[in-house]
Amino acid sequence: VDVAALEHAFDTNRDRFLRDWMELLRFPSLGGFPEREGDCERCAAWLRDWLSAAGLPAEVLSTPHRPVVFAERGGRPDAPTVLFYGHYDVQPADPLEQWTTPPFDPHLRAGRMYARGAEDNKGQLFAVLAAAATLVRNNALPGALKIVLEGEEECGSRGLYAKLAEWKRRLAADVLMVADTGTVPSGAPTITMGLRGVAFLNARLRGPDHDLHSGTHGGLAPNPALGMARLLTTLHRPDGSVAVAGYYDGVAPPADEERRLADAEPFDPAEYRRATGCDPAGGERGLSAALRRGFRPTLEINGLHSGYAGPGTKTIIPSEAEAKISLRLVAGQDPAHCLEAVARHLAAHVPPGLRLDIPERAVGGPGFRLRLDSRAVARARRALAGVSPQPTAFLWEGASVPVVSALAEAAGAEPILVGFGSEEDRIHAPDESFSVEQFRKLFLYAARFLSHP
Amino acid sequence: VDVAALEHAFDTNRDRFLRDWMELLRFPSLGGFPEREGDCERCAAWLRDWLSAAGLPAEVLSTPHRPVVFAERGGRPDAPTVLFYGHYDVQPADPLEQWTTPPFDPHLRAGRMYARGAEDNKGQLFAVLAAAATLVRNNALPGALKIVLEGEEECGSRGLYAKLAEWKRRLAADVLMVADTGTVPSGAPTITMGLRGVAFLNARLRGPDHDLHSGTHGGLAPNPALGMARLLTTLHRPDGSVAVAGYYDGVAPPADEERRLADAEPFDPAEYRRATGCDPAGGERGLSAALRRGFRPTLEINGLHSGYAGPGTKTIIPSEAEAKISLRLVAGQDPAHCLEAVARHLAAHVPPGLRLDIPERAVGGPGFRLRLDSRAVARARRALAGVSPQPTAFLWEGASVPVVSALAEAAGAEPILVGFGSEEDRIHAPDESFSVEQFRKLFLYAARFLSHP
Repeated sequence: VDVAALEHAFDTNRDRFLRDWMELLRFPSLGGFPEREGDCERCAAWLRDWLSAAGLPAEVLSTPHRPVVFAERGGRPDAPTVLFYGHYDVQPADPLEQWTTPPFDPHLRAGRMYARGAEDNKGQLFAVLAAAATLVRNNALPGALKIVLEGEEECGSRGLYAKLAEWKRRLAADVLMVADTGTVPSGAPTITMGLRGVAFLNARLRGPDHDLHSGTHGGLAPNPALGMARLLTTLHRPDGSVAVAGYYDGVAPPADEERRLADAEPFDPAEYRRATGCDPAGGERGLSAALRRGFRPTLEINGLHSGYAGPGTKTIIPSEAEAKISLRLVAGQDPAHCLEAVARHLAAHVPPGLRLDIPERAVGGPGFRLRLDSRAVARARRALAGVSPQPTAFLWEGASVPVVSALAEAAGAEPILVGFGSEEDRIHAPDESFSVEQFRKLFLYAARFLSHP
Repeated sequence: VDVAALEHAFDTNRDRFLRDWMELLRFPSLGGFPEREGDCERCAAWLRDWLSAAGLPAEVLSTPHRPVVFAERGGRPDAPTVLFYGHYDVQPADPLEQWTTPPFDPHLRAGRMYARGAEDNKGQLFAVLAAAATLVRNNALPGALKIVLEGEEECGSRGLYAKLAEWKRRLAADVLMVADTGTVPSGAPTITMGLRGVAFLNARLRGPDHDLHSGTHGGLAPNPALGMARLLTTLHRPDGSVAVAGYYDGVAPPADEERRLADAEPFDPAEYRRATGCDPAGGERGLSAALRRGFRPTLEINGLHSGYAGPGTKTIIPSEAEAKISLRLVAGQDPAHCLEAVARHLAAHVPPGLRLDIPERAVGGPGFRLRLDSRAVARARRALAGVSPQPTAFLWEGASVPVVSALAEAAGAEPILVGFGSEEDRIHAPDESFSVEQFRKLFLYAARFLSHP
């Protein structure tokens, strides 16, 4: 199937693709919220029906948590079997008041689709499904295709993890195709060569058993907000590195060729500032941006809350402070080991008079790096060559798709990650969007990748 | 009027006092909230009507903000004129879910009245009003009595401040009587010899202009939550003292007699722990609890908020962090100077890549200390001697009634602060309460103080 024919197929079916994509975006399929369980089930059923109607016979498989949609279509035994992985769950949409249009009421404005999940991951997964459906209709799928769409990627993939061993035969494939990543800033087609792992913990410092008057008790009661500030400050050294003993155990440094390719990609601080509103002043001093993001772990605070948040003032010493902490880990680090190291560090640095507890901790998954000489990488480069005149870029990403390592291992497949996300998409934030042009490029790549083994 | 007669008068009128007190507690008279302006006005009108009906002719005076209730009744010219000050506004009631019964639906349980404002200040002020009304009915008020009840004590007394100069003649008095303080832990009648001053500022650190994905941006974007933790940590030295240059300028050390009386009051860490749930581990190391609270300034965080606060995790680098900071100041410190010193310190310690702004700052008022040889102190000691067999205690308080210094100066009056609050009352917190016994003691003291010049 050549590019011109695929472009024609896209243009012919564009309105139908957009309409169906919008239907998919209407489900508030938040994976981690009990009150959204029904929405996740309805979203999974919709995907099953859509795939089946497209000639990709699908079913909804239950797990201990959110259901998984699984589709399978046979192919020539001599062509590699592809397993496509995506997730239909989305991040929470708050703060709601910062959305121009409601997060679950998709709107197309100036060529961009706005909705929670417009990019991550409903937009990207649906571009691949649309490509696969087009190939089925044209009888142009050479190898077998399996599709697995889970509903808990944003909160730890618990349901899929629980079933990986049981579904090993069902998932078996040669290549694990994932479209949950982005391109380099130039927009050149990009193969993501690595992802970071992730783990989480929530830390709580308790002082008084109720909020105290800050006049009567100021100078007597220990202040959990101040204590938490002091505790969190101990996590990093002034040079930006993580001060937790054992945190860097096992970190694999980049090979020379990896370092060369990573640093070859231009990084423009002015462009970064334009896209984010801030200078790239985070992370470790003295390392390039590409190395800091792709080859070094970080330790971030995602939420920090204590005391009064309303208008004006309230003169209290808060009874507690809570920090939501996440660890981004690189190939070679063991997430459970790092989580334990952080927990131990926190316990060893509790300020006087306060009590620490860690009510939640969870491992997402480890980081991983692809080999530059892999067969799947070569196949993706061939597919991308037809989509864009720009040369393909190689990116070692900072983000995580925690289940990818585990799924690749269970399926016996080589992972290949190509996506067309960009900074402009504002994933995980208000006004998330994905352009029809990004959708179209991913459609073309996926159709070429799937049709040319 | 002797104590037995007053006790009889209290017992006879107890039910009526409690009923009227509960009516007063039903107004959600939050001073700082525009949507509560009507409730404040209704509360002021209720007080005016109650006072007038009790023979204390009252009116509601408007200010640029919340209204002030003013009552005046003449007396013998040779007896000192007393100005009684109270505030009918209350603190915000959140977190609402932690109240056993709703904050503005007062309930009497096991001899304690539960409601927002049950103690601070509606309970204490109403005990004084009930005493004054009893004396009026018995024609036992020797000197003139003036009453001023404001509606913004918890948020800076803006309306009263704006009118102090204009009302100077109207407010003129010999003694300024205030019942907005507590007793020492033993419950012995207590004269509060000093109050701390207070000032506020809100600090905001901004990083990216929207929340960023913590994987894609971890190691690149500066994290405002971590930055705020680092910034707040610079405010104190490891020994608990305030590290802000110039913060201690003008702090007047206690005289030997003050130090002796302050430290004579037993402070039991076990009792403190029972009442608050925490050890008295805050403030400066190496100073007694009484000195830390009564004679030393503090710098507290009342609220600290950044990023995600919902259930589970959300992998973002927050776009900003906010801290609500309050300064408690002692006699000799200039609040505006200290506020400026803190603002300058914060500006000088902003972590790389983040931007500070200070959207709000406000001076409450300076701290003050009474003289041990004052005439009003002698009068209060005589009044208290009849109320309790326990000897009167002297307390240098940590809390603030910011307007008291300014009001005393405008009225040309000597302030005298006696209240019957206790730690158990949980003022500013959920389940605030005040016992009928505390109310009764304050009633007896106030009646004796007002009737015996």
